[in-house]
Amino acid sequence: MSLNTFGRVLRVTTWGESHGPAIGAVIDGCPPGIEVSEADIQPWLDKRRPGASRFTTQRRESDQVRILSGTFEGRTTGTPISLLIENEDPRSKDYSDVSKAYRPGHADYTYDAKYGFRDWRGGGRSSARETAVRVAAGAVARLIVPDVSIRGYLVELGGDAIDREAFDAESIDSNPLNCPDPAAAVRWERKIDEARKAGSSLGAIVECVADGVPAGWGAPIYGKLDAELAAAMMSINAAKGVEIGDGFAAARLRGEDNADAMRAGPTFLSNHAGGILGGISSGQPVVVRVAFKPTSSILTPVPTIDSDGQETEIVTKGRHDPCVGIRAVQVVEAMMALVLADQMLLHRAQCG
Amino acid sequence: MSLNTFGRVLRVTTWGESHGPAIGAVIDGCPPGIEVSEADIQPWLDKRRPGASRFTTQRRESDQVRILSGTFEGRTTGTPISLLIENEDPRSKDYSDVSKAYRPGHADYTYDAKYGFRDWRGGGRSSARETAVRVAAGAVARLIVPDVSIRGYLVELGGDAIDREAFDAESIDSNPLNCPDPAAAVRWERKIDEARKAGSSLGAIVECVADGVPAGWGAPIYGKLDAELAAAMMSINAAKGVEIGDGFAAARLRGEDNADAMRAGPTFLSNHAGGILGGISSGQPVVVRVAFKPTSSILTPVPTIDSDGQETEIVTKGRHDPCVGIRAVQVVEAMMALVLADQMLLHRAQCG
Amino acid sequence: MSLNTFGRVLRVTTWGESHGPAIGAVIDGCPPGIEVSEADIQPWLDKRRPGASRFTTQRRESDQVRILSGTFEGRTTGTPISLLIENEDPRSKDYSDVSKAYRPGHADYTYDAKYGFRDWRGGGRSSARETAVRVAAGAVARLIVPDVSIRGYLVELGGDAIDREAFDAESIDSNPLNCPDPAAAVRWERKIDEARKAGSSLGAIVECVADGVPAGWGAPIYGKLDAELAAAMMSINAAKGVEIGDGFAAARLRGEDNADAMRAGPTFLSNHAGGILGGISSGQPVVVRVAFKPTSSILTPVPTIDSDGQETEIVTKGRHDPCVGIRAVQVVEAMMALVLADQMLLHRAQCG
Amino acid sequence: MSLNTFGRVLRVTTWGESHGPAIGAVIDGCPPGIEVSEADIQPWLDKRRPGASRFTTQRRESDQVRILSGTFEGRTTGTPISLLIENEDPRSKDYSDVSKAYRPGHADYTYDAKYGFRDWRGGGRSSARETAVRVAAGAVARLIVPDVSIRGYLVELGGDAIDREAFDAESIDSNPLNCPDPAAAVRWERKIDEARKAGSSLGAIVECVADGVPAGWGAPIYGKLDAELAAAMMSINAAKGVEIGDGFAAARLRGEDNADAMRAGPTFLSNHAGGILGGISSGQPVVVRVAFKPTSSILTPVPTIDSDGQETEIVTKGRHDPCVGIRAVQVVEAMMALVLADQMLLHRAQCG
Repeated sequence: MSLNTFGRVLRVTTWGESHGPAIGAVIDGCPPGIEVSEADIQPWLDKRRPGASRFTTQRRESDQVRILSGTFEGRTTGTPISLLIENEDPRSKDYSDVSKAYRPGHADYTYDAKYGFRDWRGGGRSSARETAVRVAAGAVARLIVPDVSIRGYLVELGGDAIDREAFDAESIDSNPLNCPDPAAAVRWERKIDEARKAGSSLGAIVECVADGVPAGWGAPIYGKLDAELAAAMMSINAAKGVEIGDGFAAARLRGEDNADAMRAGPTFLSNHAGGILGGISSGQPVVVRVAFKPTSSILTPVPTIDSDGQETEIVTKGRHDPCVGIRAVQVVEAMMALVLADQMLLHRAQCG
Repeated sequence: MSLNTFGRVLRVTTWGESHGPAIGAVIDGCPPGIEVSEADIQPWLDKRRPGASRFTTQRRESDQVRILSGTFEGRTTGTPISLLIENEDPRSKDYSDVSKAYRPGHADYTYDAKYGFRDWRGGGRSSARETAVRVAAGAVARLIVPDVSIRGYLVELGGDAIDREAFDAESIDSNPLNCPDPAAAVRWERKIDEARKAGSSLGAIVECVADGVPAGWGAPIYGKLDAELAAAMMSINAAKGVEIGDGFAAARLRGEDNADAMRAGPTFLSNHAGGILGGISSGQPVVVRVAFKPTSSILTPVPTIDSDGQETEIVTKGRHDPCVGIRAVQVVEAMMALVLADQMLLHRAQCG
Repeated sequence: MSLNTFGRVLRVTTWGESHGPAIGAVIDGCPPGIEVSEADIQPWLDKRRPGASRFTTQRRESDQVRILSGTFEGRTTGTPISLLIENEDPRSKDYSDVSKAYRPGHADYTYDAKYGFRDWRGGGRSSARETAVRVAAGAVARLIVPDVSIRGYLVELGGDAIDREAFDAESIDSNPLNCPDPAAAVRWERKIDEARKAGSSLGAIVECVADGVPAGWGAPIYGKLDAELAAAMMSINAAKGVEIGDGFAAARLRGEDNADAMRAGPTFLSNHAGGILGGISSGQPVVVRVAFKPTSSILTPVPTIDSDGQETEIVTKGRHDPCVGIRAVQVVEAMMALVLADQMLLHRAQCG
Repeated sequence: MSLNTFGRVLRVTTWGESHGPAIGAVIDGCPPGIEVSEADIQPWLDKRRPGASRFTTQRRESDQVRILSGTFEGRTTGTPISLLIENEDPRSKDYSDVSKAYRPGHADYTYDAKYGFRDWRGGGRSSARETAVRVAAGAVARLIVPDVSIRGYLVELGGDAIDREAFDAESIDSNPLNCPDPAAAVRWERKIDEARKAGSSLGAIVECVADGVPAGWGAPIYGKLDAELAAAMMSINAAKGVEIGDGFAAARLRGEDNADAMRAGPTFLSNHAGGILGGISSGQPVVVRVAFKPTSSILTPVPTIDSDGQETEIVTKGRHDPCVGIRAVQVVEAMMALVLADQMLLHRAQCG
């Protein structure tokens, strides 16, 4: 019944709207005795922070996180950890045009249909601003599974894929696009510049790999590790697809080509499965990919209606990411951390 | 904490192993007063039943469902509905070879890693046999949302896609492959015959469309309709990817091409979104696609290890579907029904 | 959202009506590798079984339990354990009088008010018959916390309390009333005989003590051990009150008299708290008491109405316990076991 | 798995420690469109506020609540409502004596046993300070069930019961003890003055009645209205017993005396059941009583140990209520409101 709560044993409840006074998260079920302070969380928020490059929204938020509960003398106490980030730069006026008209691709129409009315300032609760606190919570989750390392990056932007042969983990942080292929990064910058100037937007595909996950995490049948990851990723704004390991490409393989043979170790000779078998981690890297649609906020006029049912056209002003997939990398990583920490605790509950 | 329970308000708990005496489901939270009997459930089970054609496993199960509780004088009482299906044709002997060796692609290794040992007979709990009770539960769910019609079919088999121009809903039931393109159905039969003779297997992609879903179902942020569908579909055996609407293809569109313009009605001029915006249904058809890997059970020898860590080779005998995607159509439909019925009730709780 | 599910990590879902074909429970989240068979469960059911003495209902049920899933070669596999007990001796005809009229004290009126109609045969789902499967599930729970010993008994029947000085644990099983005071047992037998002959019924108070619970179980704030026990006990048919340790009597003590002083060990010099402080076990015996109202089924005519709103009088025939508190002892023990096993697993999840 | 979350459909997550910067609650699942502002919540907090009379703790907190999310233009939006109250007057120094020694009756020892260490400042998370946000959340819950009126009061203090014949609802608010019997209020003031001067403390029994609850709320079997109330009440600090209707006294009645006869209307001729039958509301007033132990913080020295296991004596200084039962009245009311609002929504989900 977790409308705004994620997780089973490690439960993260988020709250807040794009243009309200603050956003926050309450993390419940965290093990006691873990050293944590704002300094452990802030770097991850800084990586996701808007306005860091010309490729993201120009909204200026310092995204300073405060821990309001759940720690004592620098360690978690086992009680709920309350995280709070103040909203510093909302410009609700930018949105007064859309207070009635429904922006295509946004949740405007559906929120009205569901709740009867909506907070139209910056998308309210449906804004990707909410994902900032996911990143903060994910930073705490990483500390719960310290032996797991999680790395996300773009593998495709605007239909242009990286060259897997040119994959260079070092380069991910050296460009503002979280791109592991330096040549692609150069091409992508041009693509984004072009799209932004045209008032258009681009989609992207994020890949995220978790190394160091031991075999045995995941809770069949309905808490399978891959099912949990699928829900986690699909809950991110603008996500339209999720795949594990070879994903959709696996549907085109023959059985003998998809089989990951095993040798003593135990070790696997390949990882088509993406580190998950029968919903349980196999000890191989856990690999997930998430497709993000192009940002719905564009300057091209689109036919739409308003809340009175009248036909109109809309141009979405405001400050927006030309490609939401870029900053989504941090959110995908955070959700991966939350799922893994949760499943570790759940595994410990049942299997000791 | 629903290890073997699915849903939030409509909760389905399944139990049972491939070669145990029976499998079953308990459906909790069903509204009272709904007319239901075994006759409403059996046809859906019959569509999924093994052994119906040469394209599915030759295991012979009549899959007769019994309702053991929750109804009175032909109507649901609001108390838990217990469904039971006896296992009639297990052949555990076929599996004695694999009681120690790990079948690649199966959950053998991971179940051992998690639980310390496993029921190796036919895959035990990890067998797709469990999905029979999902289909039974889904039949009840359909009755909870009678105005919704749900239709699943294959859109790709072994890498061979249907021709969308040739889509013919009528033809889905007229071939044993749930294929909506008659010409593709002919090609696919040949492909499967070839694969089965070669001891190989094929993957497939299932598409499922729900018509008649009103705008407003779905519970942001962490119970979004698309996130629930993603978890539901990814929990099906052999599923490796899930996408909503245009899915991964949306990542290759520009913003103006992905936008679904609206006109008075309200109506939409396209459905790139697959009927879901901001995690809430838009009133358009809900469209989901699921990628299924090729059956892991193949006659080609694959290097593996056994539970003592010794290297060996394995050939998976037993009776298996050459393409699990075919029968998965019924399971995808059932999960769609379960998610939608659950979200309808959840919506009713919050929004009256 | 657990309408018919109890527990957080160890989840027990029960189903079935008094006069349906069977009743059952699905236990999910049980740790793997625990030795269990029907022989471990049956003795507890036999202790609760109806018809064992003249002090309980004369309905004849052998209450033979079957394990349908979740074990392999005599051990739990970590997958759901399905338990089934067939109903052998329903006499629905006895209830045809009450198919319309509401029996005071029963759930007849409220089930109709909630669900619009009801299964009137023997009380349907609201019958205490459901508690048989709780006892079966509790037997499994005991195996999860093998170092905990749980003992329930009556401390009061029809307003006649035991003499605490005469408490003799050995005598509990040596009389059919679960009475730890041999002299009281003799008095009580006479009271029950008198009440039954008069067509009346009696209430009772059950006390249950769990020894061997280590300090640290319980999940503040809203999963406190005492809160969980309160919910568990109040969910038993006919329960009207729950108290922990000194309970209501503690409200009459002064602070200095209620304080349980500690000495090195650690040890406590008293146990007014009933083994729980701040919702967490203290290592002392956990003590709970539950008040059961007199059986609502009596032969004295009581004014009532029927489902058409017409006034009438009712005499409740059928076979009933003159004092439901007697057999409730087994149910209280089972619920104690379920709560403790659940909290142990929950503690292990968070605190390792 | 709701360690710090209460409720099923209406879910309230609380966070915060006695001496941290703030405490708060996140209310999820609230229906949209309800008019609410801080002004609707503050009066209930003011009634509970410490320092209002000499009969409560002298800690000075203004308990000003802020709504940080979930409303727009004065109405709930259906998204999470975040409530925050700053802690203004912690005096952690007062507690430095108890940073090592365990205060008997408090959660000091058990928190250490569970979590390995604890926030000893004012009891940390185990402090009754947490209940302030329950009162705030309860104020919102009242707005969800506006036709229900909830009234709590003391019926016994230090073993001295009110005279039911002298019950005067008007007088509850006219004395600082929430006492409905003016004569008892005078006696109780003397008792508390005496106890406080002696450095002692007193227990109390709170009764709470909800009028206007329609028949049909409550979710059998494991979400019974009485079971939910029992858990809710037992989760309040210092609660040791809960009873519904006649409660423990019902165990001393004969069946014919306990039966609540019905007449056309429908109406009941008595309310021994306390408004709940089979776990479902009957339309009669819902009546619950909760026993609170005497405040554990007393000036009488009590033998105890410290976290090193050394024996010592302790006197609990700091500012404390001499009788926690008095301010608990507001908390009991709040929990009643939360349970009823939750069950109303749950009922609506299943039964429309």
